[in-house]
Amino acid sequence: MKVNGTPTRTIWPNADGSVEIIDQTRLPHAFVTTTLRSMEDAAVAIKDMLVRGAPLIGATAAYGMALAMRDDASDAALQAAHDRLYATRPTAVNLRWALADMLRTLRPLPAAERAAAAWARAAAICDDDVAINEAIGDHGLGLFRAAWEKKGATGRLNVLTHCNAGWLATVDWGTALAPIYKAHDAGIPVHVWVDETRPRSQGASLTAWELNQHGVPHTVIVDNVGGHLMQHGMVDLCIVGTDRTTATGDVCNKIGTYLKALAAHDNGVPFYVALPSPTVDWSISDGLKEIPIEERAGEEVSVVTGRTAAGDIVAVTVTPEGSPCGNWGFDVTPARYVTALVTERGVCPATREGLAGLFPDLAAAAAAAE
Amino acid sequence: MKVNGTPTRTIWPNADGSVEIIDQTRLPHAFVTTTLRSMEDAAVAIKDMLVRGAPLIGATAAYGMALAMRDDASDAALQAAHDRLYATRPTAVNLRWALADMLRTLRPLPAAERAAAAWARAAAICDDDVAINEAIGDHGLGLFRAAWEKKGATGRLNVLTHCNAGWLATVDWGTALAPIYKAHDAGIPVHVWVDETRPRSQGASLTAWELNQHGVPHTVIVDNVGGHLMQHGMVDLCIVGTDRTTATGDVCNKIGTYLKALAAHDNGVPFYVALPSPTVDWSISDGLKEIPIEERAGEEVSVVTGRTAAGDIVAVTVTPEGSPCGNWGFDVTPARYVTALVTERGVCPATREGLAGLFPDLAAAAAAAE
Repeated sequence: MKVNGTPTRTIWPNADGSVEIIDQTRLPHAFVTTTLRSMEDAAVAIKDMLVRGAPLIGATAAYGMALAMRDDASDAALQAAHDRLYATRPTAVNLRWALADMLRTLRPLPAAERAAAAWARAAAICDDDVAINEAIGDHGLGLFRAAWEKKGATGRLNVLTHCNAGWLATVDWGTALAPIYKAHDAGIPVHVWVDETRPRSQGASLTAWELNQHGVPHTVIVDNVGGHLMQHGMVDLCIVGTDRTTATGDVCNKIGTYLKALAAHDNGVPFYVALPSPTVDWSISDGLKEIPIEERAGEEVSVVTGRTAAGDIVAVTVTPEGSPCGNWGFDVTPARYVTALVTERGVCPATREGLAGLFPDLAAAAAAAE
Repeated sequence: MKVNGTPTRTIWPNADGSVEIIDQTRLPHAFVTTTLRSMEDAAVAIKDMLVRGAPLIGATAAYGMALAMRDDASDAALQAAHDRLYATRPTAVNLRWALADMLRTLRPLPAAERAAAAWARAAAICDDDVAINEAIGDHGLGLFRAAWEKKGATGRLNVLTHCNAGWLATVDWGTALAPIYKAHDAGIPVHVWVDETRPRSQGASLTAWELNQHGVPHTVIVDNVGGHLMQHGMVDLCIVGTDRTTATGDVCNKIGTYLKALAAHDNGVPFYVALPSPTVDWSISDGLKEIPIEERAGEEVSVVTGRTAAGDIVAVTVTPEGSPCGNWGFDVTPARYVTALVTERGVCPATREGLAGLFPDLAAAAAAAE
């Protein structure tokens, strides 16, 4: 999508064999890109969340493998790169998927051919992600059109989203935000309620920033507000992304997603989850029991970063000295609270049958692997 | 409750005829008391929110009247003090109630007797508040004991609370926190999950501070986390305060309370609401339709204040330039999601019958007034 009027992706190869990313830790206060010159740079960029969002993590890991192969294309280096990158983030299934794809592509090749193949495969993974997300946008647009017509095509279409499942979380378009961009570009007067999404505030810092850059009307709200808005008919639909989805449609997404799904269910508001098929983990069927939830440092809760009136970026502590903080990164929304899944192949119920109906090939492959 | 090991109220008279308060705008970063030497000092303390919380506002206004009478006990001064204090926060019910009480007490007296009577009445208003809150604590303690025995009296009793309904909002004990202090002092190993409570973060700044000072184990979490904790059996019960409760048990409390009540209901976790009877509005029965929800300035969302590593208190903006913020202060939790109400007269179901059963006098008076 556009940055200062220029179409931009979140990751791209440079002519000198390095890789460029947007340093998302600097947003929304500054738009700065960073150069990855080694596999270790890529691992640190993922671990320190310069890049985040499941698809973009996968794409960055793929380029991390390419950077590793450029330096050393031995079997040992290949496995070491895989293991180092795999260890950066425990929850995102795309990371595992992209690394497995790269390993499968590169391992059979002679070492001399691996670097070139790795660069080509990483680029293909990025292009595939863009195509997948645009397809999600097109399918989601149908739901948005229906919702817009249902309310008589008057006023504005109020959409609530949580965290950032926008183009910044992917290579381009985004997942949950792809239908929003499609609807906006199609002339539907979309207005987005942007959950701040504490503790890292990806909604306030990233979703608001990218909607602002693309000119989509939006309002930032704290995470406590969505239920009240839904009780008062001020939300027409919710749409969020997912970091991992079970074969049965349970959705693991940014902490707090579950609370919004409960409120949507309580108020008859459709709750959609946008997902590229690689985020489906066909091997598990109970999200609450089988998905480990990442616990992160308490400082993400106690320390808030922003800009002062003078324009300086400053970190301030908001809790008393001596009060510990707990920090869980994700929660699981049971499939029963998900109205439908929006995938690159279409819309389906959040059920095993729904997913297998759209992806019989993937479901069969998963069954065969068991 | 204790501050640095010393039992402390939020307001108290000094020997020299002045009144001491805690400057709550400095918490949690500094514990500073301020001396009110005149009615005008009291008015400013209320207006600038050095004191906050409905019961404490009422108590401060009562002492403001006493300070006025010390300086000038004429009829004109009495009315002027009432009017000046009334104008500080004209929507606060306790403020109106305390000022009317003082006026009713003082007006019939000769001027020479008014100062002494005013000091005595202000002290009585404070003592009554403490007694009400301690009674809420004792009744809530019974629920905590039952929950503790239900889990086999092992591990710790995990309690989740939202916003600040602690002693800082009252003269002492607090409402929702009173049972927590009672249980802690009784040897039940309470651990409190403290919702940060954006946008003003009263949980992170006030609840965490007062629990810390009293030595009650606690962990600050962002508002998104509670649902996840409840899904995983990490919350034994929830308890919150309320700003206004309908005759049918609908609870209007700090924005985000409703989302926690939904999660508690979905996971079979008891959700209690602690309330002194003056917060019941006997004239309304549908909280969602009849309680207007205050919209506040967007800057409370976009700007966060904390302390830097150097110890300076600094405000930083967390949203992009050009992104508007919406800010609703309260939401309504329908009575069906409230397990029970904890009042100074005991515990009752969140129903018209439950409330009228404990407060037949108030229910009858309200019915007679219609």
